[in-house]
This record gives sequence, structure tokens and C-alpha cells, in this order.
Amino acid sequence: MGLKMTSAELAAFLDAEFPQVEGQFAIEDLGEMRITTRLIVGEQHLRPGGTVSGPSIFALADVSVYLAVLAMIGPQGLAVTTNCSIDFMRKPGSGVDLIAECRLLKLGRVLAVGDVLIHSEGETAPVARASLTYSIPPAR
Amino acid sequence: MGLKMTSAELAAFLDAEFPQVEGQFAIEDLGEMRITTRLIVGEQHLRPGGTVSGPSIFALADVSVYLAVLAMIGPQGLAVTTNCSIDFMRKPGSGVDLIAECRLLKLGRVLAVGDVLIHSEGETAPVARASLTYSIPPAR
Amino acid sequence: MGLKMTSAELAAFLDAEFPQVEGQFAIEDLGEMRITTRLIVGEQHLRPGGTVSGPSIFALADVSVYLAVLAMIGPQGLAVTTNCSIDFMRKPGSGVDLIAECRLLKLGRVLAVGDVLIHSEGETAPVARASLTYSIPPAR
Amino acid sequence: MGLKMTSAELAAFLDAEFPQVEGQFAIEDLGEMRITTRLIVGEQHLRPGGTVSGPSIFALADVSVYLAVLAMIGPQGLAVTTNCSIDFMRKPGSGVDLIAECRLLKLGRVLAVGDVLIHSEGETAPVARASLTYSIPPAR
Repeated sequence: MGLKMTSAELAAFLDAEFPQVEGQFAIEDLGEMRITTRLIVGEQHLRPGGTVSGPSIFALADVSVYLAVLAMIGPQGLAVTTNCSIDFMRKPGSGVDLIAECRLLKLGRVLAVGDVLIHSEGETAPVARASLTYSIPPAR
Repeated sequence: MGLKMTSAELAAFLDAEFPQVEGQFAIEDLGEMRITTRLIVGEQHLRPGGTVSGPSIFALADVSVYLAVLAMIGPQGLAVTTNCSIDFMRKPGSGVDLIAECRLLKLGRVLAVGDVLIHSEGETAPVARASLTYSIPPAR
Repeated sequence: MGLKMTSAELAAFLDAEFPQVEGQFAIEDLGEMRITTRLIVGEQHLRPGGTVSGPSIFALADVSVYLAVLAMIGPQGLAVTTNCSIDFMRKPGSGVDLIAECRLLKLGRVLAVGDVLIHSEGETAPVARASLTYSIPPAR
Repeated sequence: MGLKMTSAELAAFLDAEFPQVEGQFAIEDLGEMRITTRLIVGEQHLRPGGTVSGPSIFALADVSVYLAVLAMIGPQGLAVTTNCSIDFMRKPGSGVDLIAECRLLKLGRVLAVGDVLIHSEGETAPVARASLTYSIPPAR
């Protein structure tokens, strides 16, 4: 069960399907059942004091599992998040990108489950952890 | 244990502390341990097809519990989300606002827990449900 | 989309399929997309000090959504829990039963989502809240 | 921030404080901010077909984080679970023990967060994953 998409193909698919987030996320590393992604932190992600907002951290976790699933099943815009549990554990570093390490724990016919550990670039203590379930549409 | 802030005071506090989200959220109704809020859906919340994005739905749930807590304890910018669990259950209606009905289930000295049911305006079937925990800073 | 099973049929199905929990749960009230259940607290549910254990509270939430789903779709032993998020908010009352108020928020072809509010009998403040997702097997 | 308790001390504390679960859990390995535990599967954990019940899997995740926290802060019976999110991903192997790999992601003054990956002994694919928050009582 190898990869069906490369990093470049994933990035191109994301830009085409979700133009609203273009330039916000980058793929750092991709493997079978795992991906490392980056939130390129900009003004729109910040809260007063320079900390990254909760919704931006959620978005990073969400896109990470989405891309990890797509890499394994191929480009299917219709995979949708059905559940997310997220723990915010530390304040993100000010003015630095966030890095998300994601692994798929299950890739079933109908459901995929991934977990994500997020830290500020240059630090090791996790800012947040999340687990997400995606519903996979029937093959067309 | 009555309300310590009015809807107008909450709205003013939100605008002052979180200028990035100014104009995105409105308070529809406020009571003890409960609040109804609205996501005023704009271009920045949408995904292709006109559906509201997951991070925008998360943001609505998050701000709802935050405001419900502040209304009870007074303006304390330092209350932070520590956990969120969210289920996305239906596609939001295209081009209509989202309404969040939030109730506080616990308001302790250190932790507050709220749950939120979100639907598209004019529909009753829930788009999402979420539960969130806030950590309340020691009184200053 | 009416009820496909009565309270008596649900109770009989539960006893037959899960003999290990016989006598632990009772159905208090049943309606479309909702159920009220009771944990008949016994020695095996208790922790030192007389409080009900976390796994017992989890079991009550789990069985409540299970029964609410079965009541709507008919007896299908193969529905399985795929996700649970639970918040423990207060210590249960000592030596009293727990009551769970459950409502189904979604009953789809593949997934069902329910939430549950649990309180000690005779008290109103919630002991716990939970949300669960069940995967529904294809109709046979 | 080294370990404050050994495996033997943890096991003795668990037996003394929670006699109801005596003999059900074993500590396989212990380190700073991490623990590996075992559910010694018996009749009381099983569902028809020989699969381990959801509440038993929940109990294993719960006790794992509890022990990992105690090992770091010393014996404090009053640490309580405030939140758990759990994904059930595969059916456990029939008649074999479950192994839980737990790591603490945060050990704060007030809250601790741990995550747990559970598999059947002799298999690698995870049966479940869970994340839990514990509230730590003020030092006495």
C-alpha cells in the first residue's frame, strides 16, 4: 500500500481545491501513513501578543490528516472531517512557524484516523496534539 | 451567580481584545450559563461550493464558550482553551450564517466546560456539536 | 422514521447480546432519537469513598447511545463505537444511581452521533457529558 | 524532573487505593514521562466473541495515564480524569492481553495530558488510541 501522490502533487491539489489557504501550508516530509507539515505563520493566524490562534492550529491539524489520507488513496476532494479532538498544551512561540507531525493510525474503507503532534519550530515541547477522523467517500 | 457582563460589554471586549475577528461574530442572546452566537459568514469562511470551513466552525464554537465564561466571571483575557472535541455532522447550508447554542455545564474555580450545538440559520438539523474546556486563570 | 423497538425489546436484546452487563442498566424512557437510561450502581462500579468509577460512567454513556441507535434501526449487534469524547465534571453522589439523558444528533447511513448528559439521581448538576460516534454496519 | 516512584511502588499504590482492579493491570516498563502497561484480560473484560469490551479499553487508557502521572509527581490519590477522547479502530485479538504505550505530553502545575496507543499483544496495528487530561490537586 504505497504512496499514490508525491509532495508536489499534494501541494498542487491543495492549491487547486482550497485556493483560500494557498501559501499557508507547506509539506516538509511525506511517507507511507505519515506526513510532516508546516503552518507558514502570517498576520492572519495571530492573536494579540503574537501567539498563533486556536482555529489556525486546528486548521494545521486538519490539513495534515487530510493530506496524509490523500497521499495514500489519491486525490479525492470529498474526504471530510467527521471528528476532531484537540488539546492545547502550551502557548506557541511568538512569530515562528508551527510544525505538525502526523501519522495515520487507521486507513479503512470508510474511515481514516490520524493523530498529530504540533510544536513551534525550534522547540520540542508540544504546543498541541490532535486526533481526527475522516470519512472516505465510496470509490467512484 | 448572575451575569457580570452584558451582551454589549462582551461584544466590546471581544472587539478590543481580538481585533482580527472584528465583525465576524454576533451575540444573539445571553443568559446565565448560556449564550447564542452567530457566525456572520463571509468570503474568508467559505470553501469551494459555498460551504463554511471546519476551522470557521471550530472558531464559532470556541468563541461561544469563551463569551459564555466571560459573561459569568467578568472580562479576563487570559482564559484559554485547553481541549475541544468537535463532531462535524452535516454540510452547512450554502451562503447562510451559522447559529451556535452554547451552555456552560461546569464553571469551576480552575476549569469551565461548555457544549455547543451549531446549525445553519433557518434549519434545525445540527451541522456540528462541540465541547470545550477552558482554563481559568487565578483571580488577580 | 419512527421507533423500531420498544423499551422491553431493547432490554431483552441487551440481556441476550451482552449477558456480562445483565442487571446493570435500565431504560427509563424512550422516544424517537432519544433515550433515558439508568446505571443501577452496585459494588462493581464503585471506587473507594463510594464514588462511581470512570469506566462505569463511560459504559453508561456508551450503552445509552447504542440503545438509542438500535431503537431507531432495529436489532443490529454489529453497530460499534468508533469514537468517544467524555468530560468528567463533578464527583457522582455516593451510593445513588446515575441517570443518562441521551439524544441522537445524527443518524446517517454509515455513522450515528449521540450526546449524553449524566447526573446522579436526585441532583441536577451534571456529573459527566459524553459524545459518541457509532459505525453502523451495512444492512443485511 | 526524575521519577518519584518505581514500578513496584506504583503497583503497590494501585492495589492499595483501587482494590477493585487488583490483578487486572501490570506495569511492563516505566520511564520519565512514559509507561507501558498491560491489561491482563479475564472473563470480566470480554464481550461475546471473545473481544475486549470498550469500557475495559477505556480503563486501560485511564490507568496508564494515571500511573504515568503518579510516577512523576509521587503518590497522590486525588488526581482525577477530567477529559478523555478515545478512538476505537480495530477489534482486539481474541483472548490475548492488551498492551498500552503511554507518554505524557504535558505535566503542568494543574493539568497533565497523556496519550495512549493500545494494541493486542503480538500484533502491531493499534486497537485504540486515547488522550486524557488529569487534574492535579494542589500540593499538600
